Amino acid sequence: MQSRVDATRCLSCRKGYASHAAGTCKECYEESNHKILDLETKVAFLQFSSSLDPSSSPCFSDVVLVASHDATDQTDLAPPVPIHAHKAVLANRSPVFRAMLENQMEEALSGTIKISDVSHDVLRAFVNYLYTAEACLDVKMARDLLEMAEKYQVEHLKAYCEKLIISKLNPGNPLNSFLSCVLASKHKAKNLLDAALSLIVDNMDKFVELEEYEELKKDHPQLVFEIYEAYHAKQVETAALKEKK
Amino acid sequence: MQSRVDATRCLSCRKGYASHAAGTCKECYEESNHKILDLETKVAFLQFSSSLDPSSSPCFSDVVLVASHDATDQTDLAPPVPIHAHKAVLANRSPVFRAMLENQMEEALSGTIKISDVSHDVLRAFVNYLYTAEACLDVKMARDLLEMAEKYQVEHLKAYCEKLIISKLNPGNPLNSFLSCVLASKHKAKNLLDAALSLIVDNMDKFVELEEYEELKKDHPQLVFEIYEAYHAKQVETAALKEKK
Repeated sequence: MQSRVDATRCLSCRKGYASHAAGTCKECYEESNHKILDLETKVAFLQFSSSLDPSSSPCFSDVVLVASHDATDQTDLAPPVPIHAHKAVLANRSPVFRAMLENQMEEALSGTIKISDVSHDVLRAFVNYLYTAEACLDVKMARDLLEMAEKYQVEHLKAYCEKLIISKLNPGNPLNSFLSCVLASKHKAKNLLDAALSLIVDNMDKFVELEEYEELKKDHPQLVFEIYEAYHAKQVETAALKEKK
Repeated sequence: MQSRVDATRCLSCRKGYASHAAGTCKECYEESNHKILDLETKVAFLQFSSSLDPSSSPCFSDVVLVASHDATDQTDLAPPVPIHAHKAVLANRSPVFRAMLENQMEEALSGTIKISDVSHDVLRAFVNYLYTAEACLDVKMARDLLEMAEKYQVEHLKAYCEKLIISKLNPGNPLNSFLSCVLASKHKAKNLLDAALSLIVDNMDKFVELEEYEELKKDHPQLVFEIYEAYHAKQVETAALKEKK
């Protein structure tokens, strides 16, 4: 499009475009820029700025979280490092924490919430997200956090992790896509399931040629059926489209 | 512009526009829509959803705020209604609260922060803003909150109030614009001061004919000088522009 001499220039990406690819007028562009700036300032205001580094002083904290399988990761001598937090924030971000803390369960009374089957680093990223709505994730961390988000019903974090995992899906790695399907299916992550499934269906040859194919059928028969059903539906659709033409 | 047959149509406001008024291409328009949606979801996640109605149960509150001149507004028998809050939230949103609470001043020890010279309603709107970054304001409330925002260094709220007061400035009411100048000058609200000053300068005749003009000169000489100086600068600028033409 850049070669068109008479093309209109986009104020955002600076590229030229033809009229059929037009977005907004200048006024609306400026309005949406203002809106974005306003929202970014609002987010910055609402985020907790104090670092949640447990080595720094825990500012008015009234509860600690502990990753309870830490001890097996480290030497038996090292005690699990507690992560300081606030009941009000935990309860506001997660209905599960809310119920736990409001109903005066053991955690509320002792002031310590033990989180099982999670590493200290994942727990820390999780708590940090509750305070900032931000995280710096690789796929491994996103998978772990997706699990925690589902367990503690933090929908915003769940969507965030799904999006990141989807962005890293790769047509050349059907085993990875399949493992994403397994994770998505286990944690009711519909967007991720749809994206991973569709990627496998689009590269079906690679999937059936996987070294692990027989094993996958044995371990996850329902999921493999689902893939074949989606594959079949796609074939039917393609055939119908061809006939129409 | 809507009459142009060959005009491009804006995807946001749906109006036709000529190429010189073009904003973005479609791709950038969609991208900024996604960004806005993402930010709105983030804001919703970070806002505290629990109503701060003091009649509802104060969820894990560790501090109360009391408007200390309440007693003079109401009958002497009515005790001031405390507003429940959280030290962590107050300290995170306002450096003044942070210093007050971290340094173990009287307020931190007693768990009660007395706010003087403010009504209960204003204090409640103020606290509510600290939790949600939102407020439903008329000009009177915006003026009161601007004062509180300056006192407790809540920049985000200050900007919010300034913007609202600016939007309600009216060229036909120079006294009101002048009072906005007084408020802005007192609380270092530069945007509001500039806007109100420029509105007065643009309608100088109305200003000097004000019934209260002599009184304003007497009570706020510095501000009236500032208006005249801005008026003079504008005259010089206009003359220079005319000469250029």
